[in-house]
Amino acid sequence: MIRVGIVGGTGYTGVELLRLLLNHSEVSLEMITSRNEAGSRVGELFPSLRRKVELRFSEPDPRLLSRCDVVFFATPNGFAMTLAPLLLSEGTRVIDLAADFRLKSVDEWQKWYAMPHACPELLAEAVYGLPELNREAIKDARLVANPGCYPTAVTLGLLPLLEGDCVSPESLVADVKSGVSGAGRKAALETAFCEAGETVRAYSVAGHRHLPEILQCLAGACRRPVGLTFVPHLMPMIRGIHATLYARLDKRDLNLQELFEARFRQEPFVDVMAAGSHPETRSVRGANCCRLSWHRPQNGDVVVVLSVIDNLGKGAAGQAIQNMNIMFGLDERTGIDQVALLP
Amino acid sequence: MIRVGIVGGTGYTGVELLRLLLNHSEVSLEMITSRNEAGSRVGELFPSLRRKVELRFSEPDPRLLSRCDVVFFATPNGFAMTLAPLLLSEGTRVIDLAADFRLKSVDEWQKWYAMPHACPELLAEAVYGLPELNREAIKDARLVANPGCYPTAVTLGLLPLLEGDCVSPESLVADVKSGVSGAGRKAALETAFCEAGETVRAYSVAGHRHLPEILQCLAGACRRPVGLTFVPHLMPMIRGIHATLYARLDKRDLNLQELFEARFRQEPFVDVMAAGSHPETRSVRGANCCRLSWHRPQNGDVVVVLSVIDNLGKGAAGQAIQNMNIMFGLDERTGIDQVALLP
Amino acid sequence: MIRVGIVGGTGYTGVELLRLLLNHSEVSLEMITSRNEAGSRVGELFPSLRRKVELRFSEPDPRLLSRCDVVFFATPNGFAMTLAPLLLSEGTRVIDLAADFRLKSVDEWQKWYAMPHACPELLAEAVYGLPELNREAIKDARLVANPGCYPTAVTLGLLPLLEGDCVSPESLVADVKSGVSGAGRKAALETAFCEAGETVRAYSVAGHRHLPEILQCLAGACRRPVGLTFVPHLMPMIRGIHATLYARLDKRDLNLQELFEARFRQEPFVDVMAAGSHPETRSVRGANCCRLSWHRPQNGDVVVVLSVIDNLGKGAAGQAIQNMNIMFGLDERTGIDQVALLP
Amino acid sequence: MIRVGIVGGTGYTGVELLRLLLNHSEVSLEMITSRNEAGSRVGELFPSLRRKVELRFSEPDPRLLSRCDVVFFATPNGFAMTLAPLLLSEGTRVIDLAADFRLKSVDEWQKWYAMPHACPELLAEAVYGLPELNREAIKDARLVANPGCYPTAVTLGLLPLLEGDCVSPESLVADVKSGVSGAGRKAALETAFCEAGETVRAYSVAGHRHLPEILQCLAGACRRPVGLTFVPHLMPMIRGIHATLYARLDKRDLNLQELFEARFRQEPFVDVMAAGSHPETRSVRGANCCRLSWHRPQNGDVVVVLSVIDNLGKGAAGQAIQNMNIMFGLDERTGIDQVALLP
Repeated sequence: MIRVGIVGGTGYTGVELLRLLLNHSEVSLEMITSRNEAGSRVGELFPSLRRKVELRFSEPDPRLLSRCDVVFFATPNGFAMTLAPLLLSEGTRVIDLAADFRLKSVDEWQKWYAMPHACPELLAEAVYGLPELNREAIKDARLVANPGCYPTAVTLGLLPLLEGDCVSPESLVADVKSGVSGAGRKAALETAFCEAGETVRAYSVAGHRHLPEILQCLAGACRRPVGLTFVPHLMPMIRGIHATLYARLDKRDLNLQELFEARFRQEPFVDVMAAGSHPETRSVRGANCCRLSWHRPQNGDVVVVLSVIDNLGKGAAGQAIQNMNIMFGLDERTGIDQVALLP
Repeated sequence: MIRVGIVGGTGYTGVELLRLLLNHSEVSLEMITSRNEAGSRVGELFPSLRRKVELRFSEPDPRLLSRCDVVFFATPNGFAMTLAPLLLSEGTRVIDLAADFRLKSVDEWQKWYAMPHACPELLAEAVYGLPELNREAIKDARLVANPGCYPTAVTLGLLPLLEGDCVSPESLVADVKSGVSGAGRKAALETAFCEAGETVRAYSVAGHRHLPEILQCLAGACRRPVGLTFVPHLMPMIRGIHATLYARLDKRDLNLQELFEARFRQEPFVDVMAAGSHPETRSVRGANCCRLSWHRPQNGDVVVVLSVIDNLGKGAAGQAIQNMNIMFGLDERTGIDQVALLP
Repeated sequence: MIRVGIVGGTGYTGVELLRLLLNHSEVSLEMITSRNEAGSRVGELFPSLRRKVELRFSEPDPRLLSRCDVVFFATPNGFAMTLAPLLLSEGTRVIDLAADFRLKSVDEWQKWYAMPHACPELLAEAVYGLPELNREAIKDARLVANPGCYPTAVTLGLLPLLEGDCVSPESLVADVKSGVSGAGRKAALETAFCEAGETVRAYSVAGHRHLPEILQCLAGACRRPVGLTFVPHLMPMIRGIHATLYARLDKRDLNLQELFEARFRQEPFVDVMAAGSHPETRSVRGANCCRLSWHRPQNGDVVVVLSVIDNLGKGAAGQAIQNMNIMFGLDERTGIDQVALLP
Repeated sequence: MIRVGIVGGTGYTGVELLRLLLNHSEVSLEMITSRNEAGSRVGELFPSLRRKVELRFSEPDPRLLSRCDVVFFATPNGFAMTLAPLLLSEGTRVIDLAADFRLKSVDEWQKWYAMPHACPELLAEAVYGLPELNREAIKDARLVANPGCYPTAVTLGLLPLLEGDCVSPESLVADVKSGVSGAGRKAALETAFCEAGETVRAYSVAGHRHLPEILQCLAGACRRPVGLTFVPHLMPMIRGIHATLYARLDKRDLNLQELFEARFRQEPFVDVMAAGSHPETRSVRGANCCRLSWHRPQNGDVVVVLSVIDNLGKGAAGQAIQNMNIMFGLDERTGIDQVALLP
């Protein structure tokens, strides 16, 4: 059994990690920390977990955490980097669900996250945990940077096109719609029910922190700089991301369906639908799955890719466990092969 | 492995049965029927099931169905009774998720369901599949009538009080709030998004088909006739039932918390919360669980019980599988011990 | 033109007051105050009001407020009572949308609101602003306590029955469902989109502040003490209250339809539907209207009344303007006779 | 008073027309037709209109309709064209809220709407009722084609850029999000609450009927053919359209804010927000308003325009009344200058 710790278990990625890990046959959940909730039972905070987990929240004591084989950080940006060096030095592997280790450039990181990085020397070693891109490196990784939800949906949708040099990389558009849980579990006016319900709006059009992360992914895929206009939107739903991706085809006589199917044939968690399909976010609710399809409207030279994930599933907790499974040599699907909850 | 067939797999209880049975270690799904969809893949109708189930919908051929050990009917009222006698005679056990076998009185049944009953002789044999009430009888049952969603939530909430003769049975009130999926998967104006969203209304106040079923349950529990005012309401949410139950206490010096805890201590799927708690429907979303608590406002002689279930879980598919587990001698929790999806 | 001031214009009742007053032909909006937003334009906070109102929020300066003919307080409980005596002494009339002047008993008030009352001497003078109950007194009132949303829906629904001595007043039940905007415009975890969406729960079953207010109304109507079990619930919708009211009939040969119609025949804002109807909250969204119907299930001795309002309309801002219209001798419908927004 | 008739009053545009016309000081509502509902009161179908309108639905009798000064068609595509010639010949002016007269090319029309056009000779005369584009022509129009909801939001957002030759017209992208009411009031599985709630999906990516209409508008604005990729999406909300528009700037030293403000300065129903703003659909809920802003992410050469309307307001009924006001020489704002309903 893999001894697992969770740091910062009171947010939505934390409770989703718990839901999934409780269903995981190879895991022993050792501790879950929260400064604010230390001492209280998990089931008091999340009644969905009553009678499922007897653990209490505890202080994030590094000494105790280092007894785990792996520690998930479901903390705000800037926290994992304060504990990761110590845990790694003790032989505990680290999966950070926040952004501390996602960017390779420390300057970029510090610019977008507006704080000094506590351990820039680890950025080179950290493996960006998108299994469809980095599976081999993840196997041996001590430190995995679990991708952001937007970057996961956008990168998987554009990967085949960019790797195949099929589209112009300088004028990509990612128009992405997110459920409200992407903003986290917190008291905030802008995500209040009466403020976020029955309305749609874009946000952070001037620049969202996931932009440099996506650019890094896409540039890696096509080995060239890319130009991307990325506009995130807030939807009146709880879970789900729908990425609508626009690219200009450079080659016109491609079998795009084959391209996508070939790229993802071996992937257990990417589902290429028939050409012309319209994936729904609910078809992946609660599941670790990216479902996608492509279109070529009016048979022109624009390709539209539709890519959906659950921001808390393949966009966070599900993918983190997928990374853990790879790191520990398990069947990649262990514990995360559940069917989406529909309706 | 238990060979399972599903008749009528295109509704919400059908897809929920599939979701849960795919997660069940002791089941082999043999066939799933639908007249309208015969020939098409399950994953075409329900994209959440793509790559999870390779079966195609087929015609409900009784000969093939009778090769199953058990057949679930997730069909409209009035269909299971046309096939049940044949299947039973072939040794196939039957669990009906509709109402065909829920009432003991054929007259009552014919009055509320406005059609002749096709096999009234089976009504006496059929076991009402509320495990918390009838576990022993379910073990040997050939034919189980899976309870309605409202009767499950209401009965479990009132059971300890009525069995203990603690409340006046003649003036009970059940004010119950249901998500829209309780109305089934169908094209209907009154359950359209723009008709059922952002609004609340009562319906069928004059008399709902679940009323005689609830009365039968409650009268059985207290061995007397009961008087119940039952008002169902439609809520703008997909899943969930919240029953708010009002009864007048006959005895004042009761330890109600102990009463409820003692009644359900052995029950794997009933969670008695601390007195004064407010269970949320989302805490059981996707789970086979009834979570409940009681209140005594202003320390008066009215007891208020709050009881929540997922109408598709403990109120339908989850409970049906719980019944199957009991019928086949399995651990009752097999395949249905999942954590609720929250948020 | 009536010179109007609004104190505390940044909440949902404030923005609704603005929406309606901008549509009111006899009103000149003189000032709107907010300590936090002083100096900023109303349209910056509420984009729905861009280009509709040029006012800026200002500090609540009593000297300037006293130049108004009437001041609406859309402030938290406990604020209006600090300014009301001064304004009244200057001849400015006051309508408080909060609870400061709703209860006649200062002891009860201090118990439920957990603070000392700043001007208990005004409680006797203050008129409870339910026009259907107190129209004559409102005409000459200097100080009107605008009713709470729950008390409005419950009182209007039970009024004819209690005034007519038709039901037992000692065992009333009010099971009430409210949209989330009833909790106000604020950053709070429990009303976050992902916490209040797709779920239903009861709250404050042990005792809600609107309970003594409802009891005071109902006892006044039947000139006897009443016993009421009041359970409020939070619904996943923005606006609307649905009260489901249960009472035991004392007289059996009543024409209840005639009773309700006669009681409300002259009322411009109470709509008695045909017996057996099911009013929807959306049918009054944005309107100053209480729509109601009654049922007598199975022709028994329990009468069920269904009563819906918009908690921000007839439950707050609409009713406040109705009171103002009465106080200033205008046609009661001026500015608040709009059609509900459906869908 | 303008004598007004409505043909097809049982859909969402019909009830919205009624809501607004009842608030219109210069209108006398003469008749409202519906084949299915002929004989029943409007308030029976739409309880929000109880006690507001005493009319009954009637058969669409052309002779009676021709006594009106103007007739609104809120009917399915293909119906207005069967009655328009007769009404026009009798001197009755016609405003069609469906698509019968929106396209200038009869071939295009017949291709996209898959039926023969009943009066192609009227296509040249019909005026496309976007006042911001065609105000002068609307004044004298006998026949107005009221624009589609998507075309309204997209055209208004791109108009200043295309008229000013600021962007490349051949590679425009319109990613548009719509509330469910855009699909009309009908029983359909895909717009059922449990199918359209808590999910997002694109639809008709291969080609939506509003595409040729938008292309006609945009090509007219820049007097050149345009290339547009148009992807509509269904959002889990009732009302609202959010258009996210992407274009490549040809000129870099433009003051875009001034461009937008200058273009719409005289427009009563277009609100240009400050650069970098994020308009919300709820800010125009129930209002006849298009609110928009522009962005230039990372100061690059892509301009992003965000444009929101209420699909039933400025996208349908509100705009139709705006057209009527212009046609009859009234103040353009009469009856449609209401404040949006927020929250």
